[in-house]
Formats: sequence, C-alpha cells, structure tokens
Amino acid sequence: MSSIPKIVILGAGYGGVLTSLRLQKELNYNEADVTLVNKHDYHYITTHLHMPAAGTDNPENARVNISKLIDEFKIDFVKSTVVQIRPQDRKVILEDGTLSYDYLVIALGGEPETFGIPGMAEHAMNIRSINSVRLIREHIEYQFARFKREPHRTDYLTFVVGGAGFTGIEFVGELSDRIPELCKQFDVDPSLVKIYNIEAAPTALPGFDPELVQYAMEVLQKKGVTFRIGTAIKECKPDGVIVGDGEEIKAATVIWTGGIRGNRLIEEAGFETMRGRVKVDEFLRAPGHDNVFVLGDNSLVFNPEGRPYPPTAQIAMQEGVNCAHNLVASIRNQSLKPFTFQSKGTVASLGKGEAIGIAFGKKYKGRVAAWLKKAIDLRYLFIIGGIPLVLRKGKFL
Amino acid sequence: MSSIPKIVILGAGYGGVLTSLRLQKELNYNEADVTLVNKHDYHYITTHLHMPAAGTDNPENARVNISKLIDEFKIDFVKSTVVQIRPQDRKVILEDGTLSYDYLVIALGGEPETFGIPGMAEHAMNIRSINSVRLIREHIEYQFARFKREPHRTDYLTFVVGGAGFTGIEFVGELSDRIPELCKQFDVDPSLVKIYNIEAAPTALPGFDPELVQYAMEVLQKKGVTFRIGTAIKECKPDGVIVGDGEEIKAATVIWTGGIRGNRLIEEAGFETMRGRVKVDEFLRAPGHDNVFVLGDNSLVFNPEGRPYPPTAQIAMQEGVNCAHNLVASIRNQSLKPFTFQSKGTVASLGKGEAIGIAFGKKYKGRVAAWLKKAIDLRYLFIIGGIPLVLRKGKFL
Repeated sequence: MSSIPKIVILGAGYGGVLTSLRLQKELNYNEADVTLVNKHDYHYITTHLHMPAAGTDNPENARVNISKLIDEFKIDFVKSTVVQIRPQDRKVILEDGTLSYDYLVIALGGEPETFGIPGMAEHAMNIRSINSVRLIREHIEYQFARFKREPHRTDYLTFVVGGAGFTGIEFVGELSDRIPELCKQFDVDPSLVKIYNIEAAPTALPGFDPELVQYAMEVLQKKGVTFRIGTAIKECKPDGVIVGDGEEIKAATVIWTGGIRGNRLIEEAGFETMRGRVKVDEFLRAPGHDNVFVLGDNSLVFNPEGRPYPPTAQIAMQEGVNCAHNLVASIRNQSLKPFTFQSKGTVASLGKGEAIGIAFGKKYKGRVAAWLKKAIDLRYLFIIGGIPLVLRKGKFL
Repeated sequence: MSSIPKIVILGAGYGGVLTSLRLQKELNYNEADVTLVNKHDYHYITTHLHMPAAGTDNPENARVNISKLIDEFKIDFVKSTVVQIRPQDRKVILEDGTLSYDYLVIALGGEPETFGIPGMAEHAMNIRSINSVRLIREHIEYQFARFKREPHRTDYLTFVVGGAGFTGIEFVGELSDRIPELCKQFDVDPSLVKIYNIEAAPTALPGFDPELVQYAMEVLQKKGVTFRIGTAIKECKPDGVIVGDGEEIKAATVIWTGGIRGNRLIEEAGFETMRGRVKVDEFLRAPGHDNVFVLGDNSLVFNPEGRPYPPTAQIAMQEGVNCAHNLVASIRNQSLKPFTFQSKGTVASLGKGEAIGIAFGKKYKGRVAAWLKKAIDLRYLFIIGGIPLVLRKGKFL
C-alpha cells in the first residue's frame, strides 16, 4: 500500500478533463494517485452538442475518447457511474465499486432545471450528452417519416424549443439549417414546418448585448424561427406545450434548454447548495471541506459585483486549471491560489456562417463572428488534445 | 375533342410502367390518348425496398422519377390518388378530378393482408412504399437512440418480422447486416439485439427448394436471426406480439410481411374478387369487362396446374408487356394474345454477398446467387430506363 495521497476526480467534462490534464503535467512521479471517474469512456464537447442534436454534424465529432486525452500511466481511468458521495467517510460509491480519496474533485456536470413546469421533465428532451442528442436527432427524423404516413399530423412538423439562452439560440440556428435538408429527404413541403423558440425572460439571450440579440433574432426569424419572448411555458404535455395565456401549441417535439441546476448527488451528500450548486470558497472548495473541490455546473462563483457567473465551458476550464494548481499546492503544503475568472469573450452560433459575439472588448456579427466561433472551438481541441485532436475533430469549413 | 380512344393506366408500379413503356413504343402517333395516374411522381423498385427499410441503402436508390421513364409527349402523367373506379360510367374518380376512359388498366398494387390478426394493421409497419420504408428505417434508428436513455428497455432492441416469405427473409438479411453498424453508431452491446422472424407456415419461403431454404436459414441464423417457423402470431400489440402458445415477445418494432391482398378499390368498384384480386381472363381482362385489364398484385393468374402464381415483380412486368400488346390489338380490332408466364428464375437476397436462387433450371447459393441477384436488378433498370438509369441507380459492388 502506498501512502501517497489519493485524488479522485468525478466527471470528465470541461472541469474534470482540465484538472486531469494539468495534474498529469504538474505532479511529480509518485506524488499522488489520481483517478478519473466518468460514466462514459469519452469526453464530450458540450458546446458542440446543438449541432448533432439538430443533425447538422455527426455526434462523433462532439466526443473524444478519454484514452486519447489522458496519460493512463499517470492517471487511472474508471468508467463507472457515481451513485453516492460520502464526504464524512472520504469515499465515493460507484455503481460497481467504491473509491476512497484524500482529495475529491466534483466535476459531475449539472442537470436540467425545469423550474417545476408540469410535464417538462417527463416529456421534453434535453441537449446535454451524446446519448441525449442522438435521441433528439433520431426523434426529429422520425417525425418527418411519420408525417409522410399521417399527413394530417402537422404537429409532427412542429418543433418547440423552450429557452432562448445560448443553447436554445444555437440549437434553433442549427435546426433551421437542417429543416430544408430534411424536407428534401422526406419530400415534405417546408412551409408546413414550424420552429418555436419560447422564452419566459423579457429578452432572448438575457444579459447579452441588446444590439447583437436584435441581430440574432432577425437572422433566425429569416430562417423560419418564430420567437415567443416574455412567454412562459405553463405545461409540457406529450403532444405539445401550453404557454402564457393558455394557448396550446401542438408539437411532437419539445426540447428544453431553459435552465441548468447542480447535480442531485451533491445535495444528497449533505453539501450546502443553492439550486443544487455549492457556493465554493475562493479556492473552489466546498465550505467546511478543505479536501473537496467543486467545479463547473455544480459550482457557484460570484463576480466582483456579487452576481454568480453563468455556468459555461470557459469558466469550467479555468476552474479546472485553478483546481489542479490548488491540489498540487495542498499536497505540497504550499499556499493556495484564489480563483478569478478571466472572460475571453462569448460567441453564439446562429447556424451556418452566422454568429454574434463579444471578444477583446468588441462586438462581432455575421461571418466574422462565425469564424471567431470556429477559432474558439479549435483552440479548445488544441488545449485538450494538441494538434492531433485538432486535425481529427476540428471543423475548418 | 379528339375521338381517339382514351387509355387510363392506374399505378406506376411494375405493371403500369411496363404497360406505359410498351404503349409509347407500339402505338402510332395519335392512335390513342394514354394517361398514367400515380400517387407519387416517382416509380419505386419494390424488390429493393428491404434495403432502405433496414437502412443498408438510401431510399433514393429505390425510386426513379416517372418523368425520367416515360415520354411525356406520348403519355400524359397525372400525379393523384385514385378514390374510386366506376366501370359502369367508364370513369375514375381522383382525389382532385375525374378521368374518363375507353380502356382501363388497373395496376394499383396490393395492400398488406393481415388475415384478421388483431392489432396487426394498427401496430405493425409494412415494407411497401418509399414512405413506409423511410418510416421503418427511422423507427429502427430511433429505438437505438431511445435505448441509450432507458437501458432497461431491451424491447427497444427487439425486432419482430412477421412472415418468412421473400420480403421477410430479404429484410431480416439486410437488418442483420445493419445491426452491427447501428450498435457501433449508438454504443450498444450487439448481444442485446434480437431479431425474430416468425412464420405460421411449416417452412420459411414456402414453395421454394427445401435445400436452399435450409441454407438460407443457416446463413441468417449465423447472422443472429432467431426463426420461429410453424408459429402463428396471435396478436400484435403496441409493445410486441403474442405467438402460438400464448408466449409474449416484447418488441418496440414489428414489421409485417406475411401477406398481400388486392386493392380495396377493386372490390368497391364491384369487380368479383378473391382476397381482393380479380381472376382475370386469358387476356388479363376483368371478367365481363372487355375494356378493363388488371395487372400485378390485383390480378389472379393460374399456372397450368391450376394454382395461382405468387404476385412478383417478374409476373407484373410480363403482364404489363402483354397488356400493352392487347390494348393495341383491341384498338386495331386485331386478335388478342393470351398471357403466359415465363419464369426466368427466382433469387432471394440474404444480405451482403449472400443469396439463394433458382435460374436456368439450376440452384445457386452464396456469392454466385448474390451476383445473379445484382444482374437481375441491373436488367430491370435497363428495361425501364436504359443505360442512363443503370448508371444512376445500379449497384455494382
């Protein structure tokens, strides 16, 4: 039995992968045992999932085998599902075993937040994993095939996207690109297809630059998207949604992108949470647990104005880097480094050749923004997998 | 108003297309008005439909635009659905109009015969048109995507094919080729997938050479097909089938290939029928209607031993040629030619590189039979569309 500290990292999303990559670089030989646990043997690029969900890209391009990312001589990988976290015992219960830890990194990713809207959890699909987006893609294609056999069922051709945040907007952008292809493939009149994007907030992309939001909505409206902004979904049913004033929109496809909350395992473990998220200390640790770091969707980090940063890939990656640093420092009894978020800008895709974004303190839209988006995507692939991954999964056109 | 005879051909399947092609060749200028009516603006190659249904080929390869087949200077094409045939008025009622005729060719194709099995018409899918096979293909893919989100639902991965005649056997051959691809695409363990081929008759491919049937079953069993021969389906439910002794097979996909009957429009028109088919005279005319020819699945033609020929593409094509000849002879007051079926052999595909067949008085199996099948397919494309169609739609590998 080695007496070196054991680090267990739960989840191979943005936070978990960046923590792992940094640890394998910074730790000396035999300085710690590191184990990465993930449900699947692949990492997925969550910010790409709106494309395979709509069917405009292959799901394979949105995932990378973990064995291609981590050095398995330095980090053990366990493919399993976490069932329970027991901070009092310093143990993690897996579906098929138990892991003990000295340090724990919780980077499990979040869950859809449905805000108690009746039926939403049961009847809507979510853009959140390779499996979930393959379901959405197949579901959409299936509706076209079904419509050809039951041509009175125009609800098969009605698509409701709940939430006009980043995921919702990026998804309707892709979907509106995909519809003409599907219409051609299945001999369907494109004028029968309806895409609704419904948002309860008074604007699409809340918090984003209003001029760019206006531009985005115009681009998407031209592509056939109908917006219902400032309109809450009251109920989701198997055959559609009921909105604001009781109006029913019949739709065989409802996709909910309206919110993310923390993973339920964290509440169950006894950590103090807000909407399932842990308000971490300045070093990203759970209050009262100096050996437990919480990253990404499960972590609540506040900006200097005292408002929480929205959960993005960008912040999760920076948290991973900081967490790895603080793990190494903890092991070496050095002082920890407080986390500060450095925004590198934000770009939202609106489908092929169109995007909006803010970067380097400037606004971008149209083709330039779309190129910026590609550059960000390529940069990420480079960070996690170097040039080989860029060449294998990168989209250059 | 011209006083030249009006010929109306209902259906652009094998019989209708061959009749049209021959008429446009044999009729002199202004000798008759010919109108071809079809539900779609394309002809489909029914004998190929098992491939797009399983997803091993693109549905586009199984259809040809009618405008590429017929010479629209010689034959009028009307895209419409036939609602009623009124032989007493010499009229055909279409969804959006009415056609009068002097001569009528009924080549509408058949309908699935479910032999009164409860639930079969409601819950099973059929391999019978481009729209129906696109539905099957999408339905199958959708089940794989659903399974990944509900891994306890192994019924999503269970496929029941009712009927082990030609269509059933050819379909399970393709499906068993397709399953490994789908398992890879959706990360599904192939051992969880089950394909059942259920046949009430005491043998698969009833009437076919027993040695070849044995060979076919062995090939398909090795590919993972479970046969239930001599086993009737008692009931089809939304979630599976009940067979012989009350055993329930849970399956989210049931495809019925167990029988074809004549089109209901023919009974409704008052023609005398057996299972919806018209026992035509030796010139392929409906008894008592010298101006109405009935071809293909709607026609009952007896072999010299007094047993009806099974409805195949081969016989429908030969009937089309004979019908065109007899139409021209009728117009010219010449004597009609009796129809005789010349069997050119039969080949059944068992998936990639495997088939069984009888041709030129010999038995074939394996790779040779698979080549023979391809030759037959290419020959058909050549007959209906010449070299250009062979090059466009032919499969040479």
